[in-house]
Order: sequence, then structure tokens, then C-alpha cells
Amino acid sequence: MNKLLTVTISAALIGISGAALAAPKPFEAVEYRKGIFKAVKWNFGPMGDMMKGKVEFNAEEFARRANNLAALSHMPLEGFIPGTYERSTAALPAIESDWQTFAAGMENFQSKTAELAEAAKSGDKGQIAPAFMQVARTCKGCHDKFKD
Amino acid sequence: MNKLLTVTISAALIGISGAALAAPKPFEAVEYRKGIFKAVKWNFGPMGDMMKGKVEFNAEEFARRANNLAALSHMPLEGFIPGTYERSTAALPAIESDWQTFAAGMENFQSKTAELAEAAKSGDKGQIAPAFMQVARTCKGCHDKFKD
Repeated sequence: MNKLLTVTISAALIGISGAALAAPKPFEAVEYRKGIFKAVKWNFGPMGDMMKGKVEFNAEEFARRANNLAALSHMPLEGFIPGTYERSTAALPAIESDWQTFAAGMENFQSKTAELAEAAKSGDKGQIAPAFMQVARTCKGCHDKFKD
Repeated sequence: MNKLLTVTISAALIGISGAALAAPKPFEAVEYRKGIFKAVKWNFGPMGDMMKGKVEFNAEEFARRANNLAALSHMPLEGFIPGTYERSTAALPAIESDWQTFAAGMENFQSKTAELAEAAKSGDKGQIAPAFMQVARTCKGCHDKFKD
């Protein structure tokens, strides 16, 4: 084997080992996705209170939180990795065995939060309400099947 | 007092009590901001590994994570509320006593992550590297002063 090839292969192997080292540990993935869902709740809670009239509707705050939600909706999926459905989690193993349904549910969450962020720009509660309910349904849809 | 006025005041008081009920509890705020910082680390870690050459540079993944960071950078500040610097947190009371410096540090984090997301669109590691280092410095800047 010539020297250049050896060096290239070694570099490739270092690359692989680097990649393996960089892979997230199961508990990190659990903590990560839990963190994202805490942030989802942190934003969705006050939005719900506004929609229900428990607190005064504030169009600017509502729109800011709707944008947060839309950004957050793209984040949790990569935290659902193999070996993370046993400890310190309410996520059910069905996520792994029925991944396509779960991933489709997440995509639905993404598109519905995008629609809510768009509706929130209007500042009109009547226009926002149905978009808000759609998002709430995407939460429930996945929780029923995939959350303990 | 006429009946209409009584009803209006009662409604106003319900509104106030609703607002008070809706205010986040200290432990929720701590969990929320910790969740955001876990998500920051989850994204920043692999970006750092790519910049250091520990894993192969992937322009698309890097840009996606840079966008996540830019969105996340706007979220933690509202989790730093009074009464949340004693338990289950590495956040120092200096955040409260020197709020202006802390808030300015967060704004700096926001603008530098926005610049990084912009640089990441180029897909050019040489252009990205200085923007990445700038973000890393904003992390360290606040941690030195405000994190245990």
C-alpha cells in the first residue's frame, strides 16, 4: 500500500471515530427533547390563557410566542434516537416501532405551527383561534399514541 | 354602585387573578431556561466538532443548526425571573443585581448567532469560522460573570 493511501485511510478512520465520539448519548437526547418540550409548553401555555380569556390578549406577545413555537417544532425529532425509551422519559417505544406515523405527526406539528405563526401576524383573535386549535390537536394526536 | 359597574369590576378582578395564576412558577422558569440551554448545547456541540475537524463538515447540517441557535438565542432571557437564583441552578444572583449587563450579553448572543446563521448560508468554512468564534465568545462572556 503506498504511503498516501495509508494516510488517506487513517484520516478516514479518524473521521469515523470522530463521528462516533460526537454521537449524542441516550440521556443527552432525552434531556434535549424534554428541554424542547418544556419550551413548547412555556410558550403554548400563555397563548392558551390568552385564547381562553384567562389573561388579556396581547397580539405582539402572541405572535412572538407563535414564532417561537414554529421554530421549536423543528427541533425535537432528532432527539428521538434508539435506546431512549426506557429511562426518565414518558416517550413510548411505539415511537421506534411506528416511526413513520410519529415522524408524520411531527411534520404536522411543524406545518400547523407555521400556519399559526402566519395567522398570528393578523393580530385578530377570531382568525387565530382555529389555527390555535389545529396546533392543540397535533399535540394531542401524538400524545395519545406516543406518550405515557 | 350600579350593577353594570360591579360586573365590570368583577370581570377586571377575574382578569387580574387570571394573570397572577398564569405567571410562571420559579421552578418552571429554571427548567425552561435550562431546557433552552440544553438545546443550545445540542446544536453548538456538533457545530464545534465540525469546525475543529472532529467530524466531517456538512454545510447543510451546519446551516440548520445555526438557524436553530439564532432562534433559541431569543428565548432564555424571559426565564430569568426573580426568585430563581438559589435552587437547582448554576445561574448567579449577579444576573438580578447586574441585569443590564446580563441582558446586553444576551442581545450580543442574539446578534452574533444571527451573523453566524447568515455566514453559514455560504457553506464556506473559512467564512464561517470567525462568525463561529464570535458566538463562542458571547457564551464565555456571560458564563464567566453569571454562571457558577
